[in-house]
Formats: sequence, structure tokens, C-alpha cells
Amino acid sequence: MSKAFTIFGGTGDLTFRKLLPALYNGSISGAESEDYQIIIIGRREYTTEQYCALAREWVQKFARLPYSDRAFGRFASRIAYYRMDFSDPAAYQELNDYFSAHGIEEFIFYLAVAPRFFGLIAENLASVSGASRGKVILEKPFGETLEAAKDLNRRLETIFSPDQIYRIDHYLGKEMVRNIETIRFSNPIFTNLWDARFIESVQISALEDVGVESRGGYYDEAGAMKDMVQNHLFQILSIVAMERPSDYIGSDMHAEQLKVLHALRPVGQEPIKDTLVLGQYEGYRQEKLVGAHSQTDTYAALRLFIDNDRWRGAPFYIRTGKKLGEREMNVVVTFRRPRPDVAHNVLVIRIQPTEGVYLQFNIQKPGDTTDITQAKMDFCQSCLLENRINTPEAYERLIGACIRGEHFWFSQWDQIETGWEYVEQLRTAYREAGLPLVSYPTGSSGPVQADRLLERFGHAWFKT
Amino acid sequence: MSKAFTIFGGTGDLTFRKLLPALYNGSISGAESEDYQIIIIGRREYTTEQYCALAREWVQKFARLPYSDRAFGRFASRIAYYRMDFSDPAAYQELNDYFSAHGIEEFIFYLAVAPRFFGLIAENLASVSGASRGKVILEKPFGETLEAAKDLNRRLETIFSPDQIYRIDHYLGKEMVRNIETIRFSNPIFTNLWDARFIESVQISALEDVGVESRGGYYDEAGAMKDMVQNHLFQILSIVAMERPSDYIGSDMHAEQLKVLHALRPVGQEPIKDTLVLGQYEGYRQEKLVGAHSQTDTYAALRLFIDNDRWRGAPFYIRTGKKLGEREMNVVVTFRRPRPDVAHNVLVIRIQPTEGVYLQFNIQKPGDTTDITQAKMDFCQSCLLENRINTPEAYERLIGACIRGEHFWFSQWDQIETGWEYVEQLRTAYREAGLPLVSYPTGSSGPVQADRLLERFGHAWFKT
Repeated sequence: MSKAFTIFGGTGDLTFRKLLPALYNGSISGAESEDYQIIIIGRREYTTEQYCALAREWVQKFARLPYSDRAFGRFASRIAYYRMDFSDPAAYQELNDYFSAHGIEEFIFYLAVAPRFFGLIAENLASVSGASRGKVILEKPFGETLEAAKDLNRRLETIFSPDQIYRIDHYLGKEMVRNIETIRFSNPIFTNLWDARFIESVQISALEDVGVESRGGYYDEAGAMKDMVQNHLFQILSIVAMERPSDYIGSDMHAEQLKVLHALRPVGQEPIKDTLVLGQYEGYRQEKLVGAHSQTDTYAALRLFIDNDRWRGAPFYIRTGKKLGEREMNVVVTFRRPRPDVAHNVLVIRIQPTEGVYLQFNIQKPGDTTDITQAKMDFCQSCLLENRINTPEAYERLIGACIRGEHFWFSQWDQIETGWEYVEQLRTAYREAGLPLVSYPTGSSGPVQADRLLERFGHAWFKT
Repeated sequence: MSKAFTIFGGTGDLTFRKLLPALYNGSISGAESEDYQIIIIGRREYTTEQYCALAREWVQKFARLPYSDRAFGRFASRIAYYRMDFSDPAAYQELNDYFSAHGIEEFIFYLAVAPRFFGLIAENLASVSGASRGKVILEKPFGETLEAAKDLNRRLETIFSPDQIYRIDHYLGKEMVRNIETIRFSNPIFTNLWDARFIESVQISALEDVGVESRGGYYDEAGAMKDMVQNHLFQILSIVAMERPSDYIGSDMHAEQLKVLHALRPVGQEPIKDTLVLGQYEGYRQEKLVGAHSQTDTYAALRLFIDNDRWRGAPFYIRTGKKLGEREMNVVVTFRRPRPDVAHNVLVIRIQPTEGVYLQFNIQKPGDTTDITQAKMDFCQSCLLENRINTPEAYERLIGACIRGEHFWFSQWDQIETGWEYVEQLRTAYREAGLPLVSYPTGSSGPVQADRLLERFGHAWFKT
């Protein structure tokens, strides 16, 4: 076998929960990843057999496709556990020998490690013959601060060219996020109405019912703005708002997405109190690994404008938070209404947990009346039983996309940097204006201030 | 009780199957018709008790609301059977005395009789005191020929002014036909796209699986063009195509509908072979009361144009037929597509048997792909169990509308005459061009010539 999918951080949570199940699924479904030997790099003393015994449990628990000993055996035969200390430069020479001995000539490296190791690993891979012609996959956080992230990126790019680097935003692997582009550009009923003349506002919500759980240490450094807004939600925002990429579906749309981020109304033009609400759930400071006086945001609501011809006058509302009353992620497009006595037409793209699209429209109330009421035309993708089995998970899809070199499924550094800078400016303005981090009860729909932010402009968060 | 709902033809099919069940439902649901005494006029020798015993069976069989002896008893207490020969002028003086004796001052007359009696009854009602201030309801056929219908209308209008005459088109009582106006004008997503720039074609289909059944005598005189196209389908066509009535929903939209009919491309401008296909199902001539050499159309397919700014360039396809493979009535609005490799966006308004609306749109195929597939956003009104019970039947609704004086629920003579003339011109052109009445197998989707009519112009009948 001449191709290797090498995972640094092979005994970590990401590997066990996401990567191994995704690779197992790929092995059953005959995905491209099947051609790859799987090299697990870890510091711990395992034999390959021991590691596979461990991997088996996670696959049984998390793989979407059915587990069988035979299928797992076939999958496991491609796994090799390789013990090394990746902070030791000398170890890479040995790794090089290992690769050579196994005739590996094509490389994918998955850096499932803390961001501070990205640069180190990349630089050391330079001593592995052929590695610098391979691909490298990494994932947020891309750095602990924007400066650190920029620095890491520079170090990565000394070894790998930008088109060899695949930055996973796993939301881009989600069925309905990928679908936004198709919905917009392959449906004239939407394409022809997709601007501020017809659209009154757009809402993007990512609501979580869980708290920080075991990730308090990481999260307390990040917060909602950095963990969700600057990457996932800006990705979605820019796909919803971008101009049509020259090549339609599957095209590299990064350039158009980036233009959207650059067109965001500069921080300072609107009063920051009309732009941002930051919140923290009650009890957050008692969470494990969270500071007793933490000022970290676990909730953020934003009112943004995109200053271009398409969107002038239509606000984009974004919100995300933890420990809310519901778990739901969706994009809500509210069309302008013809008169105040009828409800808005609303297109809702449901990303999770339900996947689908529905359209709220007006219809005559059933019965002997001319009153108008609302109804939903609904397409529930995840309700189709066949899809629950057939639809690959985000990681499965993204691993395949990396192998095929489909860059449009991944984040680009420009986007990350631009979004991150914008978010930093907002946070700074918020702090400098002395606006409070508002408290909200767990199980609620978030801070009342976030509701008021929209109410002041005649809008409301849409209830799906 | 000072109001009377008087039915001429009280022992006929229409009364038993439709009117009595509708009035019984109204009695249970507390509709306006409850205020009316029900006078059943018939030639047969029944007592009111005998008639009610008969009525009970039909109500049990056809009323949508639950039957109970108590409810029927309350309903029946409003019924009086009145025996008379309505062709005898002297009988109307007695009827007048009867009404006076019962203090009747408000009148609705339902002429559930053959059209040749419309004029006669109307003229004789002139001798019933106060009757000419009442309302009169009648139903197609409005005459055996257009000339006869015009004549009957003139005779009716010597007694009743046009706004006292309610011409039932029971399709206008159907939930989803009434809804077309709401869908069009209260939903910007549709309002803004409702013209030939965005719409490629409109199809209106009324497919029946039954044959002529017991109505061979009537049907053989009428045929599909007269029985369905010139009234029901032209009603729907004109609601789909009309300009916005000044008053929105519930407004009197007749003027706008009439403009559409006047804008139909004049017969003769298009080759008739590109406009009309007439068919007859195999075995039709063996049906009871049908001529052995009958040339009556049991199927019609039309390709029409509306020559105004809104619709120039978008054909309207209409089809209707008996003994087809399915029973279905719907309006299909096909939007222009952005490129040939994606399917059209299609809005389908389902009128019967299912009531609802769905939108066929394009979406990414589930799974690890960028292929595009079609999905449906569906709103099925009749699937909501509560609606099955709560939604009044067409006749119930229309009786209420007549009582309230809501003329927009009824056909207007102008519309009938204009549609009828157009249909006559088409039939004449068809005959004069020597085009054949084509045969089609029962249980099929109609004559292949109807498929070819669309194929020649790059279209196809939409399969729901």
C-alpha cells in the first residue's frame, strides 16, 4: 500500500469519536479512504492490537454503519499504531524510515493535536521524504490568539503550500450547509428573490442545550464569539450572502465568501449596543476548569449589515449559545411582506438536529372564511429513513473531500483571519463601551437583551 | 320564522346528495342557513314526514358531520314538503299564500331543475309577493346551447337583477380553488414571480377515473369542453392569470377574471392543431343513453395563450377527461429554469382529491456528492385530520356565501358567456379543420395526441 492517512493525536477524543468511526464507515461504503493505510501516532505504549481493541469500542459506539467483526477486522488490518514523541525531531527520521519501509509515497496528515503543535509537527515533517508534497488537515482552534494563529499559519506555509492545507470546519460537511448553495443557485424561485429588495432579514442560529461539559478549559479561553461566530457562523453567513461563484455548485467559492466578509459594515459605524449582546449562563463559573470570575461569553447575538448592493438594508442576525432550552441550528430567511396584516413568507433551512427545508406561507384558513393563516410546506430530509443510513457524517465527507482535493469543502485562511479580526474588533468595542456580559438562566432562550436587540428594529427571533 | 330556503326540484339527485347534507351540516355547525325554513318543492305525493324519512337516509349517507337522531330531528323540524307542479302558473298563487301564511319575507330559491325550467320558474315567481326581492341560485348547465342559455338568462333577468342571481360553480367552493387567490397575492415569494418572465407554463388538469355513469343523456349533449372547460377550468384559469383585484382577498374579482378571458388569444391566430385535442374513451358509445355514433368529446387538451403583458410567451395547458387512470385535479405552475441540467421549480396546487400545495425544488443529493436532485416541500391540508372534519363541503360554503351576499364565490354571466363563446369557436375550428376525435383506452392518461401537443413545444404534462 503506497498511501498513508496519518493521524497525529491518535489517542485523543477527536480520533476516537470522529475520525476512526468516519474511516470505518468509509471502509464499509467503499469510500476513497479505503486505499489508505491508517497510521496512528501516539505517545502511549500500545501495540497495534491493543490500539485496535480500543478503537473497536469507539467504532461500535459511534459509527453510523453497522458494526461487524468481519468488517472491523478488514478495517483494522489497515491500521498501524506508531509510537512516537512528535516533539522530538529525531523521531521524524525514524518515521521517515517507517514510511519508506512500507513504500508510502502519498501522504495525508491529520493534526488532531492542540494548535501549539501545528507548527512544530509541520516543520519536522520536512525531514520526512515526500511528506511536504502531501496534504495536511487541521481544525480549529487554529491558535489561542489571532496573533498566534497567524504565526502558526506562517510556519505551516513554509512547509505546505496553501492548497495542501485543509482546514476543517465540520459545519461545511453538514448536508444542509452544503445545500445552501444549491438551494440558492439552482432554484429560480429563490435565486430571483435573494436580495434586500425581497428579503427583510436573515437569521442564523446555532443553539445548544449542553454547557461546556468536559471542555471548560478550552472553552473558557475561547467563548461563543471565537468558538462559533468567527468560524462556523461566518462560514454560513457568507454562503447565504455571497454572489454566485462563476462555476456554480462545487466550485471554489472562497473568493465570493471572502468578499462578503470584507463587506461587513465596519465596526464603529453602528453603535455597538445595536450590534452585539454577549451573555453567560448562570452557573457557568462553577463549571470544571472555568475561572471563578470568568468573563467568557457563552452566548452571543449579533446584528450585522453587509454593505453591498445585494444586501443594503437587510440585517443579518446571528446568535449562538450554550445551555439553552433547545438544540437547533438553522438559517431563517424572512421575506418582506406585502402588507402588515399578513405574516411574512419565511424560508427555513434546518441544519441540525433535523435536516430539511421549509417554507412558511399564507393560505386561507380552512373552512368557510376568507381569513388568512400560516402553513408550512415542508421537506424533511432527515425524516427519510433511507437517508439516515445513507448520509455520511461530516467527517466522512470531509476526509473524502480532502482525498479528492475538493478545497471548497474547507475553510480558507483568509476567511478565518478576516472573520477573526472582525470578531475581535466587536469584542473590543463591546468592552470599551462598558457593555455588560449579561446573565441568562439555563434552559432559557438566551438573554432578554438579545430579544430586545431585534425588537428595537421591529424584528424578532423566529420560532421554528 | 321569516326566511325561506326554497328548493325547486326537491326530490332530485342534487337535493338529496348535496343540498340536504349541506343544510344538515350547517344546522349542526350553526351556519347562517339555520335561520331558514327549508321548503322542498316537488311534484310527488309526499307528506313532510315521508319526505323527511327519505331525507334522513341521504343525510346519513352524505353529510360530513356526525348523524344523530336528535340533530336530524332539529334539522327536520325546519323542513316542509310542498307539493306543486311548478309548470302551472296558478300554483304560484297558492305558494304565495303559503309563504304569507308562514310570514316568510326573505327568500332564497334554489333552482335544482333542468335549465329549460329556469325561465318559467323565475317568471312565475313574479307573482309571489316579495320573491323578486329574493335570491335565486342556479347551476350549470345554464342552457342546452349558448343561444338557449342567453335566452334563459334574459328571462331570469327580467325578474331578478344580476346581483340577485347566484350561479354556482361548485369548484369555486373548493378549499384550494379559493386559495389560489390567497396563495398568489398574500405570498411575495409567489406574487413577485407570477408572470411569464419567471413562469414557463401553467397546467390545469381535471382528470376523472369515472365515465359518464348514469348521466349519459346529459353528457352526450355536453361533452368535456362544455361540461368542464368553459366553466370550471376557465374559472380556475382566470383566477390563476388575473391581475390583482383592487381589494385583495374576498374582493369581487369578476372584472379581473373577465379581462383574462377577453385576452385569450383569438381562435384562428394559432393553428387549431396546436391548440386543441379532443378525445373519446373506448366504449363510450356503448354507455347507457349515449348515441351509437356519438361524436361527443370525453377528453379535451388545450394549449392557450393570454395575450397581455403578464403572460405573453407562457402557454396555459388545460386538460380534462373521463375514464382516465387517475382522479386528480390540480394547477401546476412551472418556473423557468436557470440552465438545462437542473429540473424546473414547480408549484403544484392540489385541488382534489388531496388538498394542498407543494413546491418541487432542487437540492443536493444526500450523501457525499454534488449532484442535484429534486425534492418536495409539501403542505397537505387534507392530511390534517382536524380539517377533514372541520372543512365545509363546497355546497355548504356556497349556500353560506349566497346568504351573506358574497358574490365573488359565484360565476358571473359575462364569464360564462365569454368562456362558452370561446369554447364554441374552438370546437368549430376543430371540426372545420377536419381534426379527428381521437380514441383513448380507459384507464390511460388520455390520448397520445395530447402528450404530443405539448412535446412539440418542448413541454410535458407534469406527473404529480
